[in-house]
Amino acid sequence: MTNPRAERVKAVRALASRSVRRRSGTFLVEGPQAVREAVGPGAPRVHDVYLTPDAVRRHPEIVEGAHQVGARVRTGTPEVLEAMSPDAQGVVAVVDQVRADLDDVLAARPRLVAVLAHVRDPGNAGTVLRAADAAGAGAVVLTASSVDVHNPKAVRSTAGSLFHLPVVAGPELPEVVARLRAAGLTVLAADGSAPHDLDDLLDVAGAAPAGVPDLAAPTAWVFGNEAWGLREEDLALADAAVRVPLRGRAESLNLATAAAVCLYASGRAQR
Amino acid sequence: MTNPRAERVKAVRALASRSVRRRSGTFLVEGPQAVREAVGPGAPRVHDVYLTPDAVRRHPEIVEGAHQVGARVRTGTPEVLEAMSPDAQGVVAVVDQVRADLDDVLAARPRLVAVLAHVRDPGNAGTVLRAADAAGAGAVVLTASSVDVHNPKAVRSTAGSLFHLPVVAGPELPEVVARLRAAGLTVLAADGSAPHDLDDLLDVAGAAPAGVPDLAAPTAWVFGNEAWGLREEDLALADAAVRVPLRGRAESLNLATAAAVCLYASGRAQR
Repeated sequence: MTNPRAERVKAVRALASRSVRRRSGTFLVEGPQAVREAVGPGAPRVHDVYLTPDAVRRHPEIVEGAHQVGARVRTGTPEVLEAMSPDAQGVVAVVDQVRADLDDVLAARPRLVAVLAHVRDPGNAGTVLRAADAAGAGAVVLTASSVDVHNPKAVRSTAGSLFHLPVVAGPELPEVVARLRAAGLTVLAADGSAPHDLDDLLDVAGAAPAGVPDLAAPTAWVFGNEAWGLREEDLALADAAVRVPLRGRAESLNLATAAAVCLYASGRAQR
Repeated sequence: MTNPRAERVKAVRALASRSVRRRSGTFLVEGPQAVREAVGPGAPRVHDVYLTPDAVRRHPEIVEGAHQVGARVRTGTPEVLEAMSPDAQGVVAVVDQVRADLDDVLAARPRLVAVLAHVRDPGNAGTVLRAADAAGAGAVVLTASSVDVHNPKAVRSTAGSLFHLPVVAGPELPEVVARLRAAGLTVLAADGSAPHDLDDLLDVAGAAPAGVPDLAAPTAWVFGNEAWGLREEDLALADAAVRVPLRGRAESLNLATAAAVCLYASGRAQR
């Protein structure tokens, strides 16, 4: 492919738009690291992989993987790849959206789940997903009002973790919380002014007295919007609300920072 | 002020450029939350505060604070404020750069210090500074090759923490490490493939056997570049290298995530 204005190039580029992604059911995976994951085990169906001739030489394992998963492989000039995505680094793929079912997720009896409620910034959502993967979470749930995790910036921020653990998108928070609880998970809401201090909970993890959440137990964390957190009615859904201690003069934490500290605390308590 | 093309407006806007900031020794603080901190206790000298008439009505405490610290207060039309900064929300201030001296910082005997070495992304630097404040750090050091913390995006990412704790900028990493160590701090390098696991160190904090770093002791953490981490020669400077455990399939952590988990581990161990 040599024409950066070809219809196919425009169709790939258009996947930056949420409405186009919704119609097609696919999304754009950019750059060699992410595409390598996309053609690896556990990833959704890959339709097309586009590479520059230089990228074909540098990343033979991507071409090999693409053939193995039955994807179409096409080469394009650097101008074509650049027109498809400014973040392609010579490689992009068009891939089916990740859509895990909450029932399937819960059937696998996860011990740690991250729920993003009303999270709107794609970079934050992707960074939390990456931290959840690293902390050992079994799934991530994005509620109906949250950002589309297939947004290109969100995908980039996951650094491949989008393909590492089940991601459920779309249900409303009350339904998610009810089903998580029915599956035996303690539901904790992260909130800056909550009564429980995360460090105090870590102190008693595995032997928490009655009325105190036990971080060693299977846990779902609910994280709220980056600007205004969780609403009263969201907090009321949880079994308990927990704050990350603020030791200096900071008034709050960045959402992704707070989520990472909470998820790592659970990962530590569940060792 | 009514003319968005006035020289004074252009001079404020120009502070988005590092070279202009270097010449003037000042930087731009944007938005009501950050400007409120800038005219509060402990902040550097504030030269000018610009507000829309609407912002004057909504934020009388900023006008009051500005007068108290001897700043000039000027009103401008919404077009003038927008021309000064697209992120002003009606309020900006021109403030002397924050410049703590490493000797002064060490004289205060901090128990927790964050060092950013070769960190290039302003959002990452600001987010780490905010997390360091929240985790209880006594200072943040940015080495010579790191991003300017007065970059507008870095300032926004600190959410006011830039004014909460001393920030030292400019020295080379070997000098920083030598002086931190001479001041009695254990210097730990965060590195994904390091021999020590952060959770193992937390287990023995306060009673670490010989040869194992004790997180309860005064500690300086060194964090490296967002893409390539710390170089061999940087790692060799530290007393020990420590990894954040990766429990899922993630290959690495976002820099700010890793820094937050490390700093909070130290904050917890030092309670």
